[in-house]
Amino acid sequence: MQENLKYDIPKNLRKKITESNVVGPTSAYAYGHIQANLVIIDKSYAFDFLSYSMLNPSPCPILEVLDPGNPFPVKSATNSDIRYDLGKYLIFQNGKSKVVENIKDYWTKSKVTFLIGCLFSMQKHFEESGIIINHLNENKIDPTYISNIPTNSFGIFDGPMIVSMWPIHKNYITKAIAISSKLPSVHGKPIHIGDPGFIGIDDIENPDYGDIIKLKSDEIPVFWGCGITPQLIAQQKNIDMITHHPGNMYITDLKTNEMEII
Amino acid sequence: MQENLKYDIPKNLRKKITESNVVGPTSAYAYGHIQANLVIIDKSYAFDFLSYSMLNPSPCPILEVLDPGNPFPVKSATNSDIRYDLGKYLIFQNGKSKVVENIKDYWTKSKVTFLIGCLFSMQKHFEESGIIINHLNENKIDPTYISNIPTNSFGIFDGPMIVSMWPIHKNYITKAIAISSKLPSVHGKPIHIGDPGFIGIDDIENPDYGDIIKLKSDEIPVFWGCGITPQLIAQQKNIDMITHHPGNMYITDLKTNEMEII
Repeated sequence: MQENLKYDIPKNLRKKITESNVVGPTSAYAYGHIQANLVIIDKSYAFDFLSYSMLNPSPCPILEVLDPGNPFPVKSATNSDIRYDLGKYLIFQNGKSKVVENIKDYWTKSKVTFLIGCLFSMQKHFEESGIIINHLNENKIDPTYISNIPTNSFGIFDGPMIVSMWPIHKNYITKAIAISSKLPSVHGKPIHIGDPGFIGIDDIENPDYGDIIKLKSDEIPVFWGCGITPQLIAQQKNIDMITHHPGNMYITDLKTNEMEII
Repeated sequence: MQENLKYDIPKNLRKKITESNVVGPTSAYAYGHIQANLVIIDKSYAFDFLSYSMLNPSPCPILEVLDPGNPFPVKSATNSDIRYDLGKYLIFQNGKSKVVENIKDYWTKSKVTFLIGCLFSMQKHFEESGIIINHLNENKIDPTYISNIPTNSFGIFDGPMIVSMWPIHKNYITKAIAISSKLPSVHGKPIHIGDPGFIGIDDIENPDYGDIIKLKSDEIPVFWGCGITPQLIAQQKNIDMITHHPGNMYITDLKTNEMEII
């Protein structure tokens, strides 16, 4: 793990990412700050997508919605341009996707940007409570699966929930629930604990996205809703959408502490 | 207070309201259930209004959004028709408003319904914790004021926050904060405590809406965001909107207990 990036401030990290001095998944960056999934769609879909997100706060907790055509976050960061400040983007068009490093050629006045909380934001809270996060120690990103849990549909938006899995030591399950429940803006409490088969995951060592993290004998798989759920909808429903590339999140200025409820 | 209505179940109360066997403010009805503010607007405004609400969770905590043209709540109630199940509605058109008993003549396929949590939903929690609610004991509704607190704008939606005031005994302020903080879906924690002048209220005994409730010498005025905030915007911005009549809320099947966070 690169300690200097772990403790670097968001503003600097975004600059390094924009200038391509730093690449790769952001999992270990900007410890204690909120990281975000990105969804950009045409304003004709904006009401339906926002309603869909509100019906599905586990995979799609909305941090910020920008005015149509505005690429500059207001609440989440200052001096930031959403078109350049992520390491890698995915362009979904005509049912296909491709990877790009910025989205200036895809931006139009009708694009609406949604920032959706990411589970990485909880890592500092977990570690400070004694919970070991394997993917951080192994320099990986967490494994992600297409579950059999249906999301609540709104308009065209509909599909299975994608879930992230973090192995948690059996003695720390209650603590993981307590910490994450206080952070609904970055996925909140787990959606399932214990049995991958129960939510349609046949092989825990064969994730649909992310890296393989092997469960140790004293660890339980804990699952949270994942903010790449909309990406699968873009593919399945053939909706034009711009998103972050899985693991390459938008790093906000917000501190995770500030987002705790109660 | 009519005890039979206080403990009647939502389904029965909605029927009595629809059949006009019960009229007047719902403050004392369906104890322990969630009551809701109503906003219905054309779908062309729906994205902006939903984004505005998310930026202003204190006055506008969204409970449910219905598909365009659908008047039947899904999450909040069963066997209910939003066009008939409130006692009195306000129709805002061309900058003017009028009172009607149902909205069947105003319904179109492009109408989008938003249900917004109401502070009345907390009354049972407060009373069971020993907090006396004056407006209930006096058979009134709570006083409501146009404050000087600006809301966060989105698109055309912008204006001052309307706030409700409940006088709370000085020994129970902390308890009132603790209880309400756990119920963000019905306005959550207070927006201000103590000094009406600080939020632009010159005369606490001259509310803009609702009844006058006199503060006793051992009571502190506590203010929460209020769900009639959008009604003032409809007037000021000349937006066609259908709402509940202040105090005549939509009674849902949801129990307040179920909406507690953590």
